[in-house]
Amino acid sequence: MIDFPYIGDICRKTPTKIVMLVVDGLGGLAHSETGRSELDEARLPNLDALAARSACGLTDPVGPGITPGSGPGHMALFGYDPVKYLLGRGVLEALGIGVDLAESDVAARGNLATVDESGLLVDRRAGRISSAESLPLVELLDKIGIPGVELSVLPVRDYRFVLVMKGERLNDAVSETDPQELGVRPLEAKPMDTESSATAEAVNAFVAAAGEALGARDRANSVLLRGFSKLPDLPSFGETYRLNPAAVAAYPMYRGLARVVGMKVLETGQTFSEQLDTLKIHFEEHDFFFLHYKPADAAGEDGDFDAKVARLEELDALVPRLLELGPDALVVAGDHASPAVMASHSWHPVPLLVHSNLTRGEGVESFSERACALGSLGRIPATGVMMLALAHAGKLTKFGP
Amino acid sequence: MIDFPYIGDICRKTPTKIVMLVVDGLGGLAHSETGRSELDEARLPNLDALAARSACGLTDPVGPGITPGSGPGHMALFGYDPVKYLLGRGVLEALGIGVDLAESDVAARGNLATVDESGLLVDRRAGRISSAESLPLVELLDKIGIPGVELSVLPVRDYRFVLVMKGERLNDAVSETDPQELGVRPLEAKPMDTESSATAEAVNAFVAAAGEALGARDRANSVLLRGFSKLPDLPSFGETYRLNPAAVAAYPMYRGLARVVGMKVLETGQTFSEQLDTLKIHFEEHDFFFLHYKPADAAGEDGDFDAKVARLEELDALVPRLLELGPDALVVAGDHASPAVMASHSWHPVPLLVHSNLTRGEGVESFSERACALGSLGRIPATGVMMLALAHAGKLTKFGP
Repeated sequence: MIDFPYIGDICRKTPTKIVMLVVDGLGGLAHSETGRSELDEARLPNLDALAARSACGLTDPVGPGITPGSGPGHMALFGYDPVKYLLGRGVLEALGIGVDLAESDVAARGNLATVDESGLLVDRRAGRISSAESLPLVELLDKIGIPGVELSVLPVRDYRFVLVMKGERLNDAVSETDPQELGVRPLEAKPMDTESSATAEAVNAFVAAAGEALGARDRANSVLLRGFSKLPDLPSFGETYRLNPAAVAAYPMYRGLARVVGMKVLETGQTFSEQLDTLKIHFEEHDFFFLHYKPADAAGEDGDFDAKVARLEELDALVPRLLELGPDALVVAGDHASPAVMASHSWHPVPLLVHSNLTRGEGVESFSERACALGSLGRIPATGVMMLALAHAGKLTKFGP
Repeated sequence: MIDFPYIGDICRKTPTKIVMLVVDGLGGLAHSETGRSELDEARLPNLDALAARSACGLTDPVGPGITPGSGPGHMALFGYDPVKYLLGRGVLEALGIGVDLAESDVAARGNLATVDESGLLVDRRAGRISSAESLPLVELLDKIGIPGVELSVLPVRDYRFVLVMKGERLNDAVSETDPQELGVRPLEAKPMDTESSATAEAVNAFVAAAGEALGARDRANSVLLRGFSKLPDLPSFGETYRLNPAAVAAYPMYRGLARVVGMKVLETGQTFSEQLDTLKIHFEEHDFFFLHYKPADAAGEDGDFDAKVARLEELDALVPRLLELGPDALVVAGDHASPAVMASHSWHPVPLLVHSNLTRGEGVESFSERACALGSLGRIPATGVMMLALAHAGKLTKFGP
């Protein structure tokens, strides 16, 4: 809990090392035919054995019933109140494609869209055109110049792009231009506070210029912008916890999330095996590692129960390589559940284990939703996980005399 | 959690239906001879079977050790912070007898009391006189007129009545007239802020007039007033959650609580069977139903263990009629515990189950305090129950990108 008012007094520098393995979309739900979740079905000999000698529990990412996006899910595990430190849609989209945002930048999520001769929207996603078709259009948009603001337009995928605005006196209280309905004109961007007037003007100038640049086309001849946002004012992860933290994540969004809280983002490969190589190479250089495993979430969001089971088993097979490094405190957590039966993120609590030389096990025989519910950690807010990690690594002193 | 700052962003309108069955005083405690609670002793084949295919847990109505009244207990289940949105004693008493309070009204709880010839209190409850004796006296009080304020005096039971004041510029920061001891005069009502001066004057004028109207009597010749209160400024339940909510409750207080948060209160009968008829008739018209079952609490407060067991069994027998309606999300919760061994409300956590097409059960074999403590929902603040209900009904979208 980075906002714990005495955090600076109780954190201490030690040579011990923490690894926080975040299994994206870790939690699941029972399959209707078997009554068993993905974690129940998966053969996880290494994680089960680890759970048997760890302290186990469940985390609530945000609160009962609230389904977090990746942003809130990770911020909570890093100890940041995910409501207070909510990252905007534009910022997340920019992080997701690896943009290195400065604190004064304003980012927005953009769609290529189609309007008719009268300027009325006929398709908010321009027929979901492919990246092949959209890339040259995004390059055209990137050439637009607006006085006093430095614009970058960057491709995301298909009809989606990110607009990043750099300049003095920019603010993100700007209404979106997407009317969310057809047969009407795109909305004008309006400033919602006095500090955002220049930004709204620049946005409207960009939209007009985009219409001119794309206007000769039948489709993808206009743009819609939403989610104007800046980086929130974030306390530094490393300074607050007195850590020298590093992130080992393959996907840009998670690398971006780590960067915005101030972690060093290590260069790594696309596979988890390569991530473990990276971890090993840099293990002596840092005292905290955020290690991200993505494939379980992707399978869950695809609604593919068997694939999620397989991705969990693949992770399990590599766990011994993680244990070999001998972290003083090892956390295995999830940013949120992604039950295959829902094919989406969900609000359900997420299994958690904390292993250190203080944990001996407590009768939990497997790393699953049901087993962890009976563990000694109970059900805790995800913002408490970092404190447990620090405590198990001997990095927290007594609070109060 | 009606105060979750992004609640408006994540709630969405869907055709799904939620039923929240509130079993008043649901929780209990073990009997000293058997070690089994009322829920343990009751044969509840339907609720047990439902628990076995639901997500189960325990709710904390307010906080550890805090015993809620009916007001806080229900407000929490509706998602309102029961401390922030505390309803005053006068307001609750007025709701309890079916008074439809306006936001500007001030209500107070009144006692008929006895003073001696010198005006000193000899009985704060006038010998607890019966309703038969008090009713004509309350009618006398109701005829009292005070310039600029419209007064209503309404009987509650025995020596108790409610005073409702309507008028412009009334406020409820008025000190009570009950000195809580004998041998002294009733206190003068004093304004505790500048907006309450007119109200305090009207109260004192009413008390003086009451003394004149009743003065010839030996007992019940005076009045004491306490709990001056107005309705708090409540966010609308329906607007906040994007629901079209209805309440099916037999007792005036619960109908009143539903009305003050903005639910439509359906006309219904005195028995739970009639309440279920009402629910069925109106099932297509609303997407949220608050269904209140009172008898378990009454038995618990009477200290009648066997009667509470019987009332729970009677409820259980009617559960199939509720299930036949096929709500998309069904919550069975309690506003607080009312253990028969305490013959009162208590602070203990209260069993909770949430059933939807996502719940498969989790090894909880009965709907009891002990079994629910092992459920996957864990122990949650009661203010989280509405969020779970909305989530299970598919009415919440993702929080944060």
